[in-house]
Amino acid sequence: MAKKPEIPHVVVSRLPIYLRALEHARQEGLTCISSQELGERLSISSAQIRKDLSMFGEYGKQGRGYPVDALIHALRQHLHVDRVWDVVLVGVGDLGHALARYKGFAERGFRIAMAFDKDPAKIGTTAGDLTVEDIRLLARRVQEAGIKIGMIATPAAAAQEVANLLVFAGVRAILNYAPIHLTVPNDVRVEYLDPVIPLQRMTYYL
Amino acid sequence: MAKKPEIPHVVVSRLPIYLRALEHARQEGLTCISSQELGERLSISSAQIRKDLSMFGEYGKQGRGYPVDALIHALRQHLHVDRVWDVVLVGVGDLGHALARYKGFAERGFRIAMAFDKDPAKIGTTAGDLTVEDIRLLARRVQEAGIKIGMIATPAAAAQEVANLLVFAGVRAILNYAPIHLTVPNDVRVEYLDPVIPLQRMTYYL
Repeated sequence: MAKKPEIPHVVVSRLPIYLRALEHARQEGLTCISSQELGERLSISSAQIRKDLSMFGEYGKQGRGYPVDALIHALRQHLHVDRVWDVVLVGVGDLGHALARYKGFAERGFRIAMAFDKDPAKIGTTAGDLTVEDIRLLARRVQEAGIKIGMIATPAAAAQEVANLLVFAGVRAILNYAPIHLTVPNDVRVEYLDPVIPLQRMTYYL
Repeated sequence: MAKKPEIPHVVVSRLPIYLRALEHARQEGLTCISSQELGERLSISSAQIRKDLSMFGEYGKQGRGYPVDALIHALRQHLHVDRVWDVVLVGVGDLGHALARYKGFAERGFRIAMAFDKDPAKIGTTAGDLTVEDIRLLARRVQEAGIKIGMIATPAAAAQEVANLLVFAGVRAILNYAPIHLTVPNDVRVEYLDPVIPLQRMTYYL
């Protein structure tokens, strides 16, 4: 796949935040937004925003701000969310159910396409619009569908084994809700959503 | 309150990750762990770990590694989770229910003590061990209890108003699940757990 010029990860990690803010601005009816206003909405300096967005070419016109629609379009392209990604969910407890029913994925580029659990009491039941499948079928189903993104919502004790299975099945990006660090090959990315980590980051300052 | 020496936020943000890994190591029966082993478990260089932990004084002995129990104790003290923090939850939809029922908070320093919603159909119902209360009572209840931490699990459209209410009630740390940036006073911290942001951070590389 042809690759874009190298952009530092710290910049990449801010792009979805810019995209989200721009989408809110569009909902409010804005067609242009200045780096100052975007910065105020995000508690990021306008200089930082101009520098980050300049890496993607010239979207902003001096004195007029960024055209909201065009910048949304460009960011979606760069983030590869100008399409919908199928996601496989593993672990259908309370959190898994909440994820399966969450309406906020579809409009932002994601769709939970399959849900798996190892608990026989859960297999065959419903989660959102999906039927929970037996985890023993995961590798084949995910490979056949070519799914590249997984969400782990299992207890910590099961998460590494699930991650291994996802990687074996071809998944290259894992969103991990389980409170444990995962060991994966270098070409697989993991992002973590253990709520206690950010809570402890804040209690340090309390 | 007497303040510790200034530690860079980037270091502070790694401390809960070290703490979690040490707690897993202790569960496995380890009493000592080297910076190398901790680093391998976390995909962080051992030099980084030694540098970060040296800011808290000398816990590691040359050649013997860190004493797991003592380091857990010290990190908990520094992160202020050598106690249990009461947390107020706002928004009791699917995610709010999952949070109210999540067993992983208590042993790591947190307890959801109250849950509020504005929906009359939800007020008075059960979420985990709690009874959902009317959001109009939030300010008084939170002030009286002296709660400093809030979790927002409402839709995006309601989140800023809820944040304002939490800040008014004395909350100084907010964990925000709603997919929107919050504007809060300088002395209030916010951490974000919108799952789409980390997903989009990964699709950039896919």
